[in-house]
Amino acid sequence: MRIGVLTSGGDCPGLNAVIRSVVHRAVVDHGDEVIGFRDGWRGLLEADHRPLDLDAVAGILALGGTVLGSSRVQPAQLRDGVERARRHVAELGIDAIIPIGGEGTLKAARLLSDAGLPIVGVPKTIDNDIAGTDVTFGFDTAVGVATEALDRLKTTAESHQRVLIVEVMGRHTGWIALHSGMAAGAHAIVVPERPFDIDELTEVVGRRFEAGKRFAIVVVAEGAKPREGSMAFEVGGTDVYGHERFAGVARQLAGELEKRLDKEARPVILGHVQRGGTPTAYDRVLATRFGWHAVEAAHEGAFGMMTALRGTDITLVPLAEAVERLKTVPHERYAEAECVL
Amino acid sequence: MRIGVLTSGGDCPGLNAVIRSVVHRAVVDHGDEVIGFRDGWRGLLEADHRPLDLDAVAGILALGGTVLGSSRVQPAQLRDGVERARRHVAELGIDAIIPIGGEGTLKAARLLSDAGLPIVGVPKTIDNDIAGTDVTFGFDTAVGVATEALDRLKTTAESHQRVLIVEVMGRHTGWIALHSGMAAGAHAIVVPERPFDIDELTEVVGRRFEAGKRFAIVVVAEGAKPREGSMAFEVGGTDVYGHERFAGVARQLAGELEKRLDKEARPVILGHVQRGGTPTAYDRVLATRFGWHAVEAAHEGAFGMMTALRGTDITLVPLAEAVERLKTVPHERYAEAECVL
Amino acid sequence: MRIGVLTSGGDCPGLNAVIRSVVHRAVVDHGDEVIGFRDGWRGLLEADHRPLDLDAVAGILALGGTVLGSSRVQPAQLRDGVERARRHVAELGIDAIIPIGGEGTLKAARLLSDAGLPIVGVPKTIDNDIAGTDVTFGFDTAVGVATEALDRLKTTAESHQRVLIVEVMGRHTGWIALHSGMAAGAHAIVVPERPFDIDELTEVVGRRFEAGKRFAIVVVAEGAKPREGSMAFEVGGTDVYGHERFAGVARQLAGELEKRLDKEARPVILGHVQRGGTPTAYDRVLATRFGWHAVEAAHEGAFGMMTALRGTDITLVPLAEAVERLKTVPHERYAEAECVL
Amino acid sequence: MRIGVLTSGGDCPGLNAVIRSVVHRAVVDHGDEVIGFRDGWRGLLEADHRPLDLDAVAGILALGGTVLGSSRVQPAQLRDGVERARRHVAELGIDAIIPIGGEGTLKAARLLSDAGLPIVGVPKTIDNDIAGTDVTFGFDTAVGVATEALDRLKTTAESHQRVLIVEVMGRHTGWIALHSGMAAGAHAIVVPERPFDIDELTEVVGRRFEAGKRFAIVVVAEGAKPREGSMAFEVGGTDVYGHERFAGVARQLAGELEKRLDKEARPVILGHVQRGGTPTAYDRVLATRFGWHAVEAAHEGAFGMMTALRGTDITLVPLAEAVERLKTVPHERYAEAECVL
Repeated sequence: MRIGVLTSGGDCPGLNAVIRSVVHRAVVDHGDEVIGFRDGWRGLLEADHRPLDLDAVAGILALGGTVLGSSRVQPAQLRDGVERARRHVAELGIDAIIPIGGEGTLKAARLLSDAGLPIVGVPKTIDNDIAGTDVTFGFDTAVGVATEALDRLKTTAESHQRVLIVEVMGRHTGWIALHSGMAAGAHAIVVPERPFDIDELTEVVGRRFEAGKRFAIVVVAEGAKPREGSMAFEVGGTDVYGHERFAGVARQLAGELEKRLDKEARPVILGHVQRGGTPTAYDRVLATRFGWHAVEAAHEGAFGMMTALRGTDITLVPLAEAVERLKTVPHERYAEAECVL
Repeated sequence: MRIGVLTSGGDCPGLNAVIRSVVHRAVVDHGDEVIGFRDGWRGLLEADHRPLDLDAVAGILALGGTVLGSSRVQPAQLRDGVERARRHVAELGIDAIIPIGGEGTLKAARLLSDAGLPIVGVPKTIDNDIAGTDVTFGFDTAVGVATEALDRLKTTAESHQRVLIVEVMGRHTGWIALHSGMAAGAHAIVVPERPFDIDELTEVVGRRFEAGKRFAIVVVAEGAKPREGSMAFEVGGTDVYGHERFAGVARQLAGELEKRLDKEARPVILGHVQRGGTPTAYDRVLATRFGWHAVEAAHEGAFGMMTALRGTDITLVPLAEAVERLKTVPHERYAEAECVL
Repeated sequence: MRIGVLTSGGDCPGLNAVIRSVVHRAVVDHGDEVIGFRDGWRGLLEADHRPLDLDAVAGILALGGTVLGSSRVQPAQLRDGVERARRHVAELGIDAIIPIGGEGTLKAARLLSDAGLPIVGVPKTIDNDIAGTDVTFGFDTAVGVATEALDRLKTTAESHQRVLIVEVMGRHTGWIALHSGMAAGAHAIVVPERPFDIDELTEVVGRRFEAGKRFAIVVVAEGAKPREGSMAFEVGGTDVYGHERFAGVARQLAGELEKRLDKEARPVILGHVQRGGTPTAYDRVLATRFGWHAVEAAHEGAFGMMTALRGTDITLVPLAEAVERLKTVPHERYAEAECVL
Repeated sequence: MRIGVLTSGGDCPGLNAVIRSVVHRAVVDHGDEVIGFRDGWRGLLEADHRPLDLDAVAGILALGGTVLGSSRVQPAQLRDGVERARRHVAELGIDAIIPIGGEGTLKAARLLSDAGLPIVGVPKTIDNDIAGTDVTFGFDTAVGVATEALDRLKTTAESHQRVLIVEVMGRHTGWIALHSGMAAGAHAIVVPERPFDIDELTEVVGRRFEAGKRFAIVVVAEGAKPREGSMAFEVGGTDVYGHERFAGVARQLAGELEKRLDKEARPVILGHVQRGGTPTAYDRVLATRFGWHAVEAAHEGAFGMMTALRGTDITLVPLAEAVERLKTVPHERYAEAECVL
């Protein structure tokens, strides 16, 4: 069998572990040949690839990033490229394509799969918002990095007697905010799924100070937004260089809380540090299992599917199901955390 | 409601997170009172306890160890103490007892539950061998510590051109060996569930050297044993001070492999470092959820049960079911790791 | 002897280690009594204090923050308070005061020392800019945190094919930028001591891309500024909430480099995470030695002095000398790093 | 100029950082050529080498191990090889040799230097026992790893109410024991420089239990030995496989203390994990500076010298001075730690 693998979308700890696992399982156990497409879908569309043998993946298990390179997928671009992709697959004698990526990538994978290409997807996102799987690799690492930062920030908030508003990743879902906030004992967690009420947040934080505490930590997902009418909120504002994310919710919340509570409040934006570097052991194991099972799926001809974790088992779910909707934080999880607004 | 909580058995990262969560949920949300028994079952048998309010659990979420102390449970001792336990529960007006512990603790919990005491167990073990739950808190931290050590040992093994036999915890099951070995890319993993054949292990390691590699890492669970007749093996031997574990399997394997391969082989015993210290974010979240749900179970009168993780949900399983058998590594997981003997 | 200790200024990993060491040395070895003033100089001015015995410092060696609380010193406020400080010292029978703090704190210490109060200072700053000592505790931790972040950011920069401009602490000196930049292999380091030329920086980064590299990491100290006339630069700008630091140099550099290089460039501001949390082993040892020697100095009557590291020895230097000037990065260190602009 | 570099002796975090720095400084700044000898002195004696350009050292700054390989030096072997070394140096047109290694390597370097070969040494040892330099790279990482382990072990010792005897590296000197013991707040530290008295150690540990504490941590360097007549001590004993270090001092101390104190006492041997893996930021900076200055020394013709840290400066000291004696822990450092026997 000849298998093509590619990584697409943003950086995510564990990508190299999947690549390595695919090669190990395919080459050693099945005697397959594996090639890697460079820079995600671009590599497929332009037939830009290189052979992946055991030497090519030696020592990459714990490395962040991706040895294959990546690029953001443009669905329209890909739509126009279906024919080219089909041609390259035929010319290269590819029997299965294993794209590793997030929502955008999996949507593209579905498109190609619907067009008849033999695809087994591997879900990837630090945000943990892909449906059909209990969790995605990269998430545990992101939560770990955020938690470690929160542990450090707590002592500073206390020494400086401040409110710190810590912005973590999560444009559409609050998974990282919820888990890192719970793990670090945050005093309030603000997630995109529940537009927040600034009066309520002020009260929650204010109550701590009334009870004699000298600091508070608020964890907020970057995609969090106020309930309509709750507070003036600069949305999608761009700075002088056109970067949208600088209208950051943490900055706005810090300003607002400082005014309302008459306490120093400062934003901290953890940023890219959450999505790079060495994966945790958890993510390496999950990524390795995904790679292994993707190769099995290819050999079984289970195309149009995606690897998924369900409990302790790796299973396959249809790509169609996975991309249908985002996996948001369910209501009962808010109650457990006790501090989700 | 008046709730008594206790921690019993060996150290395990996340114990304090459970205690804190029980107190938060019970005191803040239900208006309950919580007391902590000192040193596990001993505290219950001797009515040695202290009040646990919010201040008592402030700042302990990320701390290793247990603020309540622990002790190894002696089932016989406890059997004789049922009446005393019952009397203390009545005298102290306890409506629910939440013991946090491993196999031994949960067996004791079942005994007391069968005797009519109102018990909700919380499973704890770094070994991950308790049935009925996908995973236990403490396991992720143990795997993380072992993996970090393996990452470091790899460069040394390579520089010194050696075989390193790294012994990790796991008397009866190979969960830590399997996960840390997969996460670190070990070249062979030896687990208690599968008695190993020394010829086979020698061949696996030897093949690496024949292929031009200059080192090998073998991860072995402390409880691993050779297949009958496979090699001379000192079992349960005690050193001059009567410590059994010094007949360590890693030491014996290192000696044997060195002789057979004519390569330097050295044992490394990770030991206690795997079971203490700050829990990972994963374990803190799981421990917090377990504590929360144990309080809920108490309020619902779901006694004789234990909290458990199933997929992404926390559920309750009968204590009886949990202690019936150990949860061993299933066969299909060996295949995924590709290097389990 | 009766010793008063206080911590003043911003958070810094190792404060608790100094406090613990002072108490251990004074109480155990000299039979002294130690009291701690709350919230820095405020505690002295308001005679707000608490006894510090061995129990009070148990378990704090590795904790971030300060168990005594802190506050920013207002020199004027202190000047007016000299008489009050003198009176409290007399009333409380204090034989020596050990203030632990940065430049502002040590200036205040000198003021009080000149006024005749018995003071032995302990220098503290993550910025490493206090003269008279090779290094201050807190610096190693800050560099460690920044380096770990840079390690992670590198894989993301590469995957996303971007320039990342990483802003680290250092308003007046580039020590953290220099060391973390060297440790992580940054491609350019921008420090306050050398106003940068934007053309030169553009060229340095551009050369990497011309050489076929796909990313670049620039480390910039928060206090870095362009050479006059080099580029439009928003100084001391405040956002809508009056926070000065949001005119951040990293943000401005990212915008400018993106425009000039036609490559995606993004700022990452590490922020407070550099100044809190558990100290490294290095900082714990240094802090412990400082505390020990401060008590010795008090017993020798060496007032008006500050503990300092010189080579491998702890010595005493006059407070006057320490606060005379900031310790900036010397020229020969730029050459070693090879990428300091 | 043509420079040959080699790494010799045991693994040590920072070796790759030195190699990278030598290449960067030599190739980029001086236009030199650099070659690397494989496996230490063996590579020189057998003219086994490879070119080292910028690509060859890309991405190795933070990697543990050595890309050049290593081997233990056999002085006698080298003595016989002086002529061969001289011939290879001439044939390869080598203008300077930069060996990176510990005591054995530097003694060999001195031998070759005395024989007229152009050598600039770079000291390397996690043990920090090389004279002439304040510190060597690798030491900070080893202390960090040991401290992290001790932090974890503390909670376990407390939970289990035990004495833990933690054996760290240091055959001849107690630097790692002293620094990690101080950093982690050990209750007793046992170093090779001071043969211990078992009665005294028993008393120190016993006093803790009498004072109501429930655990104790003793840090012991592997080379520690009892004062003559103090206790029966198995020296240089070998196990059935001929491994000397299994007569480990920690194991013997644990047995002895358990008997004398009637408390559970357990040995933990940290082992190789202290000498491998990613270097700390401190070690990366020091290693980088050493590499840079070694190239400078070569260009200045300062042969027969070794790079050294003195305060904050990198200087050169004669190899003869460096290998004359081991740098042991000075007496005044014991007093500071307060718990060195």
